[in-house]
Amino acid sequence: MQLYEFLTHHQVEQIHEASLNMLEQVGIEFRYPPALEVLSKGGARVEGERVYLSPQLVESQIKKAPAQFTIYARNPDNDVVIGGDNIAFVPGYGAPFVTDMEKGRREGTLLDFQNFVKLTGASQFQDICSGMVIEPTDVPAERRHAEMIYTALKYSDKPIMGSAMGDKCARDSVRMASILFGNERELAQKPRMISILGSLTPLSYDDRMLGAIMEYARAGQPQLISTLAIAGATSPATMAGTLALQNAEILAGIVLTQLVREGTPVVFSGSSSNAEMRSGALSIGSPEMAINTAATAQMARYYNLPSRGGGAVSDAKAPDAQAAYESMMSLLMAQVSGINFVLHTAGIFESYNCMSYEKFIIDDEICGMVKKIKKGYEVNEDTLGLAVIKETGPGGHFLDKDHTLKHFRSEFYLPSLSDRDSFDDWQAKGSPLCMQSANQMFKEILAAYEAPELPEGADRELRKFIETL
Amino acid sequence: MQLYEFLTHHQVEQIHEASLNMLEQVGIEFRYPPALEVLSKGGARVEGERVYLSPQLVESQIKKAPAQFTIYARNPDNDVVIGGDNIAFVPGYGAPFVTDMEKGRREGTLLDFQNFVKLTGASQFQDICSGMVIEPTDVPAERRHAEMIYTALKYSDKPIMGSAMGDKCARDSVRMASILFGNERELAQKPRMISILGSLTPLSYDDRMLGAIMEYARAGQPQLISTLAIAGATSPATMAGTLALQNAEILAGIVLTQLVREGTPVVFSGSSSNAEMRSGALSIGSPEMAINTAATAQMARYYNLPSRGGGAVSDAKAPDAQAAYESMMSLLMAQVSGINFVLHTAGIFESYNCMSYEKFIIDDEICGMVKKIKKGYEVNEDTLGLAVIKETGPGGHFLDKDHTLKHFRSEFYLPSLSDRDSFDDWQAKGSPLCMQSANQMFKEILAAYEAPELPEGADRELRKFIETL
Repeated sequence: MQLYEFLTHHQVEQIHEASLNMLEQVGIEFRYPPALEVLSKGGARVEGERVYLSPQLVESQIKKAPAQFTIYARNPDNDVVIGGDNIAFVPGYGAPFVTDMEKGRREGTLLDFQNFVKLTGASQFQDICSGMVIEPTDVPAERRHAEMIYTALKYSDKPIMGSAMGDKCARDSVRMASILFGNERELAQKPRMISILGSLTPLSYDDRMLGAIMEYARAGQPQLISTLAIAGATSPATMAGTLALQNAEILAGIVLTQLVREGTPVVFSGSSSNAEMRSGALSIGSPEMAINTAATAQMARYYNLPSRGGGAVSDAKAPDAQAAYESMMSLLMAQVSGINFVLHTAGIFESYNCMSYEKFIIDDEICGMVKKIKKGYEVNEDTLGLAVIKETGPGGHFLDKDHTLKHFRSEFYLPSLSDRDSFDDWQAKGSPLCMQSANQMFKEILAAYEAPELPEGADRELRKFIETL
Repeated sequence: MQLYEFLTHHQVEQIHEASLNMLEQVGIEFRYPPALEVLSKGGARVEGERVYLSPQLVESQIKKAPAQFTIYARNPDNDVVIGGDNIAFVPGYGAPFVTDMEKGRREGTLLDFQNFVKLTGASQFQDICSGMVIEPTDVPAERRHAEMIYTALKYSDKPIMGSAMGDKCARDSVRMASILFGNERELAQKPRMISILGSLTPLSYDDRMLGAIMEYARAGQPQLISTLAIAGATSPATMAGTLALQNAEILAGIVLTQLVREGTPVVFSGSSSNAEMRSGALSIGSPEMAINTAATAQMARYYNLPSRGGGAVSDAKAPDAQAAYESMMSLLMAQVSGINFVLHTAGIFESYNCMSYEKFIIDDEICGMVKKIKKGYEVNEDTLGLAVIKETGPGGHFLDKDHTLKHFRSEFYLPSLSDRDSFDDWQAKGSPLCMQSANQMFKEILAAYEAPELPEGADRELRKFIETL
């Protein structure tokens, strides 16, 4: 197996050099005094909020982050390894709106959040419970992060994500994990959550993100250091320039994590794309984003760090053909390029503004197909099947052969959603569109879902903690 | 740039060895006396219709086929290079049915065929006019092949495909090309068509295909030597065994072409997939087919031959999300794996049984995105944009920079179909599904299409030829 590489090795080095050049000569703003202090102590040149990083400082710090790490789940069967030859899928994140075919588009609620946790828990292909699938607008802002973490812990036993809303929310996230999983030393040894913290392109980080970055680094919890540059709007209209800028920002963020706590697990996370130039708005279903995903995987490998990119992402407003082709493009590209962590693998569209119940089901099928491709196959005497081919000979068939019965279940992906019936059989069912079948399926899954029980005492303690907020 | 490789180099060699073993020990049936004669004279051991090929014979013959060749178009701007770093897209082929959202599914007619030729002619992304997009059932069988070739020549000036329906139809195809492009010697020097000729899996070729293979080889016209093994039905349920069997059949076909005429341009063409085991029917939207596409590209490179695989293929019955995610999977996989020739890049679904007007438009967008990814980008001082990044600095924006205005048009793919509007703008348009926009578009394209004129004399001569059939 050989991964797809969009860039040549020389191009990777050109991008790296350009990024170091930016960090040394243009600098980057860290709008948070505690971060400035750490960076200054660590050897960076600090002028006001502008921080200049030398190539030596960058290169020496990023080496300290691990190439691979594990996020531990409530159920140990669901532990997830990030890095190496692994790929982890995490559903949509951060949408203000939610939609389904019956109720239409509306603001998200905690019940919607709970439903998406259940769909994640029920899925074979989603590995981590997304941190903020939708914004639950019916919960008071000061408790929103805590209710989401509680819901994720209660309704699924997969690993969770922490809040990205500043130092206090990060602290609350860690404390809630502590209630279930032990004290901070134990948490640091066996990380229980991952969070996504992003730069403010071009070339800055704000106090909210920096507060959370430093908090999670101190607690030894993994984080995605993430840049979403919008080519033509917040970064150059060239995808090479956008990649170089993205690279500089991610490296700067990682330097900070390692200065706070050497060995903090981080993911090199690039989700840059381009602007739709008529409006200046972000496009996430573009081939430019897929290209940037492939390039991001290569840059991360160059630094020997786990990578994040891609997703089942789309600019469509309905779970239709556009939603599907954009999502498959971006997700398959992530896989063949060797991305390790994919956020937004189910449900999101409308350029990150909306989560769709039907699209969640459609994307979960896409995830299954992409993971099947990743699995590869064995080539040996048995799988080459020379014996059964000789036995069958020209003009014969294999339907009833022992070799077929032995292998087909593990060799062939069995779709949950895709319709492979004949036209007549499909018509007899009422000619359902894929989105209609998905609508049926999400309701059936939610109706049948049984949440893995939380220990009663822990549940009570978590509720008590939330009440103090 | 580095292509995706599904197999290791060792696995490629294992497949190769297994195929040679099959051809030498099991043999392959050629049900056509003239082919048996050529193979016997060429050094194969022939027993009845069973032909046994030694590794030496196979390896010495396949070396004679060119690694790259050109198919010449009526309009030289549309000449297509097959092989090397190139990828050629050709719309759907061989569907008995046709459908659109208004008229529904019905048998194909010559008018439908003409419409698809026009859509191909109008497309930026389709490179060759497919040979038998749909079966025009309103044309008498004896003239059907000729009417399709005439229609392809008349309504587009892209390269065409020849008929695969036996030696006589192949001869007619060559004669019609001759009317436009000169005598057989000239045709052999500048090939004007490519045809798809397939084995009958497992391990046989029938007289119709062999007649056409030999005819085209004599005329020096390129051909796809193609195998579609159905894992679990016509080949082992293991994809490795299916690949080995596919490989054996393609190699045997190529040996025949080179024995007929050394240097006949061929494409190593593998479109094997798996059976839906409940029904035994072919599935083409499966990840197994995508895997086989990637492996086929590698096998072809191992033999230094152009490859064919993948396509915008689907088992869906409507131009919905399933149609789109399956098509994007298969087409993007072909591209990242280095496939050179992709048949079925627009319109086909229902496991090759039906052409959809709306899906043609949807797939054409997919083709555009995939070609954009293939294009790659330059990394140099200008595209890295250090100057404009320095000028903009932290917190600035790039929307109005000269660098942006200079680059965005060539850097960003401009979609024709994909909707990137805001939710409100999309809703104001009536919330169109992708298939509805595609329905609009195909009608607009057909209404606006102006066919590139055929020289009047040639037109008359072609009609006269058809009347003799």
